[in-house]
Amino acid sequence: MSGRFDLRPGETRLTAPLQMQAELTFIGHIESPWTLSDCPRNLAQARETGQGAILHILPQFRPALEGIGAGDALVLLYWMGHAPRDLLRQVPRHRPDGTGTFSLRSPARPNPIGMGVVRVTGLEPESGILRIDAIDAVGGTALIDIKPHLPRVDDPPDA
Amino acid sequence: MSGRFDLRPGETRLTAPLQMQAELTFIGHIESPWTLSDCPRNLAQARETGQGAILHILPQFRPALEGIGAGDALVLLYWMGHAPRDLLRQVPRHRPDGTGTFSLRSPARPNPIGMGVVRVTGLEPESGILRIDAIDAVGGTALIDIKPHLPRVDDPPDA
Repeated sequence: MSGRFDLRPGETRLTAPLQMQAELTFIGHIESPWTLSDCPRNLAQARETGQGAILHILPQFRPALEGIGAGDALVLLYWMGHAPRDLLRQVPRHRPDGTGTFSLRSPARPNPIGMGVVRVTGLEPESGILRIDAIDAVGGTALIDIKPHLPRVDDPPDA
Repeated sequence: MSGRFDLRPGETRLTAPLQMQAELTFIGHIESPWTLSDCPRNLAQARETGQGAILHILPQFRPALEGIGAGDALVLLYWMGHAPRDLLRQVPRHRPDGTGTFSLRSPARPNPIGMGVVRVTGLEPESGILRIDAIDAVGGTALIDIKPHLPRVDDPPDA
């Protein structure tokens, strides 16, 4: 995984292998217009394109969609399996001084889980289809969770 | 995992075993005042207790904390490994009619990942310690990711 990724000056990576301690199951996948070469860098950019996306939920998990309706705000968790997992310090183009992985939203992280807050624009639950306003993930990205977005708990507490 | 959990009337579970398709590494753990019997049900309740918590980051991941400062809002992802993973429809006490797992924030879900938006109240990065305002997780819960909370992407889009 690390072999196909060149470090930029100022970047550092783990020297020991990651120990794996829990397992994920994929609940479906994301159909999006994006490939690795044109994927928006974040959800704000993705929304600006005006392009929606479609979530395809596997048959066995479709009963768990009950209660989701058009207009709902959802938190999606998805698996960015193409990203290197051993970068500790990164130098993204927009942060030329570099900083630690946990202060960045880069897909490169020990557990490459993306999080996106989206709005449901339509749904066919019996077919396992949820249409959403936008996503910053390439087509085919595996979905690992869907949660309702609740402002009372998901807005940051006062500083 | 399902054997130690009794279904309530109206609840349903998966009939086939989960297929595991990706692996997680733990980056540290959460020290909190809570056990399974007194853990707040959500982050709003946890904040109301006035009790803070401490994140302990493993030595190899501490360089990735660079850039995090006191006062920052963070998104934490944590592994609620005690929760059953096969519930599709649930009847929590606050929702007596029941609803689908993906429209609930219950820890019981195919991938039992908790998400909490917290505020950093202090830190000793060289010791791998981040103090936070509150958490709705029992002591010892494994941490899987830390991300900066960015209102521009993490506030829901307009309906």
